[in-house]
Amino acid sequence: MSEPATTVRVNLAERGYDIHIGQGLLAGAASFITDRRKAKHVVLITDDNVDGLHADRVADQLVEAGLEVNVMTVDAGEASKDVDVAAELWETMLQEGTDRQSVVLAVGGGVVGDLAGWVAASYARGLTFFQAPTTLLSQVDSSVGGKVGVNLPGAKNMVGAFWQPHGVVIDIDVLSTLTDRDYRAGLAEVVKYGVIMDADFFAMLEANADAINNRDPQTLIQIIARSCQLKAEVVEADEREESGRRAILNYGHTFGHALEAATGYGPLLHGEGVSIGMVCASRLAESMGLIDSGTTSRQVALLEKLGLPTSLPAGQDPAELVSLMWRDKKVQDGKIRFVLPTRIGEVQLFDSPAQQAVVESMR
Amino acid sequence: MSEPATTVRVNLAERGYDIHIGQGLLAGAASFITDRRKAKHVVLITDDNVDGLHADRVADQLVEAGLEVNVMTVDAGEASKDVDVAAELWETMLQEGTDRQSVVLAVGGGVVGDLAGWVAASYARGLTFFQAPTTLLSQVDSSVGGKVGVNLPGAKNMVGAFWQPHGVVIDIDVLSTLTDRDYRAGLAEVVKYGVIMDADFFAMLEANADAINNRDPQTLIQIIARSCQLKAEVVEADEREESGRRAILNYGHTFGHALEAATGYGPLLHGEGVSIGMVCASRLAESMGLIDSGTTSRQVALLEKLGLPTSLPAGQDPAELVSLMWRDKKVQDGKIRFVLPTRIGEVQLFDSPAQQAVVESMR
Repeated sequence: MSEPATTVRVNLAERGYDIHIGQGLLAGAASFITDRRKAKHVVLITDDNVDGLHADRVADQLVEAGLEVNVMTVDAGEASKDVDVAAELWETMLQEGTDRQSVVLAVGGGVVGDLAGWVAASYARGLTFFQAPTTLLSQVDSSVGGKVGVNLPGAKNMVGAFWQPHGVVIDIDVLSTLTDRDYRAGLAEVVKYGVIMDADFFAMLEANADAINNRDPQTLIQIIARSCQLKAEVVEADEREESGRRAILNYGHTFGHALEAATGYGPLLHGEGVSIGMVCASRLAESMGLIDSGTTSRQVALLEKLGLPTSLPAGQDPAELVSLMWRDKKVQDGKIRFVLPTRIGEVQLFDSPAQQAVVESMR
Repeated sequence: MSEPATTVRVNLAERGYDIHIGQGLLAGAASFITDRRKAKHVVLITDDNVDGLHADRVADQLVEAGLEVNVMTVDAGEASKDVDVAAELWETMLQEGTDRQSVVLAVGGGVVGDLAGWVAASYARGLTFFQAPTTLLSQVDSSVGGKVGVNLPGAKNMVGAFWQPHGVVIDIDVLSTLTDRDYRAGLAEVVKYGVIMDADFFAMLEANADAINNRDPQTLIQIIARSCQLKAEVVEADEREESGRRAILNYGHTFGHALEAATGYGPLLHGEGVSIGMVCASRLAESMGLIDSGTTSRQVALLEKLGLPTSLPAGQDPAELVSLMWRDKKVQDGKIRFVLPTRIGEVQLFDSPAQQAVVESMR
């Protein structure tokens, strides 16, 4: 069992928690849980991709540590973020005797984390929840923030809760099973943290692009830890998305979500949409005189170095995308709020620029 | 529009709220909401019993006040506390353009309040929620505490959340449409508050049993307000059921739930189960030497004066009921916690008395 290389503490009013980041940490998952909670029964939720890769191993280890474990496996993919899938899990949990002392452990990517988190939040009005995210995207995004939930037909993340985990284990060894494309998609969110909050971190990413591309373990631990830290600062200031501060995390996402929706969710990975979206947002900021073109081109250069797309897929109509944006659930009173950079390391919120300017930013 | 006769303030860490109790208050529901929240769109959830009786009228008034209103009507009865019914409501809400600025208003009894509360808690990770409870039981019970949720097959309230309302309007005029039996069932919870917390209130109920039976408006306002106040004190001390304090509200409920389950939910109303359950719990306390028989007989006398049952329905087997109790979700590590009176006005928690004593208390 390895010692955690790095611990990020998330400080929240109700309850803080630790994120352990390092190599070989999944081998210590049982003690990570039992150090934090007198648990006897663990509901381990995973998907049929991660099951054989990592979850089985974690389950065996929990059993060896004397815990009672039920592994519940859902289909891999976004379609499992669904009310019916949650309902099936709740019924299985009930049959297996899950009670208020049981804990839920999510082993998987964003879909598994979001689903398992909501299942935990709602069963018996809230069970203790642990996460072992297995994709780069979920390690730098879903492990901080407590946003859990499922989709409705036509609306992502429309049903859910804020439910903070009790602890998160990020074992970077699991990233070796990620495809190149999935790995790169996760990097888009890493770049995002640099643009919105931390110019030094952005410069560090520029300087270490090769090590990042080679998945160098120490570099990975460093960039994941810094991403979690930056997200934690935002979430600590605005846990329930009330003050507006948390909105800065949506940099690139208004464009990105519209692109994902327009392409029918799938052809474009979330991180790829965010990568293109950041470039569009940065161009929009340029057109409003907030930044010069150099600020955009630095982002484009870094994203391209990391193998990420920076322009609209062929056949996408900017005008159509704009109308999709105005249908997003974040639109309030017909106004849409854009997160735009004012320099590398800082963003601000702007209400509804002229729709024509938004269209132009995508060309 | 009448002025509220009485306001009970519920003080909670995150957010306090007012309960207005009086006559004719539903006529002022629109301003009650808009005084507390800049709302434009209201999702009014009700059932097909309450719809024509009260909800229509409330909806008309909200529309007159300039609000956009969608009335969503579910089937009356416990079967509507269901994940599928919640999912249908979420999808309809999405189609009607419900967003984070929308508010949910529950007009109905406990089923409608629990369902609508969970629907509100989960849509877009939480909408503002108002309640207009229309049964005595929901007025003295569901309007304080924030417990919302639905049932799973074989397990009541197994999926849900703690979600506090933003305000509650209790219009006692709606009680005139309650059947005698439903009205009396609500009184069981009122008596409960006296036994667990307030000997003076218990004595007041004894002294005013005739006025209560006649549904005298001023007496009703008084007993509802005091019940809400007493429950609020408990919930304020233990909002999320963590310290154990909140468990005292379950006086009579361990027996009552087992009785409801044994009779298949329906033949026995919840309040009737609680009434019988309180007598059983009091007898159990007697057998343990906690109280003398006079403490039980005062409860039996008051409950009987209010037309409530105080002994097991014919054909119920106490031994079978005991095995049902040990299957309740409140059982932790095989131990069951009983709420038992130590005098009128005070209860304490006791872990698992001998099962034979529990059986005897029901004979």
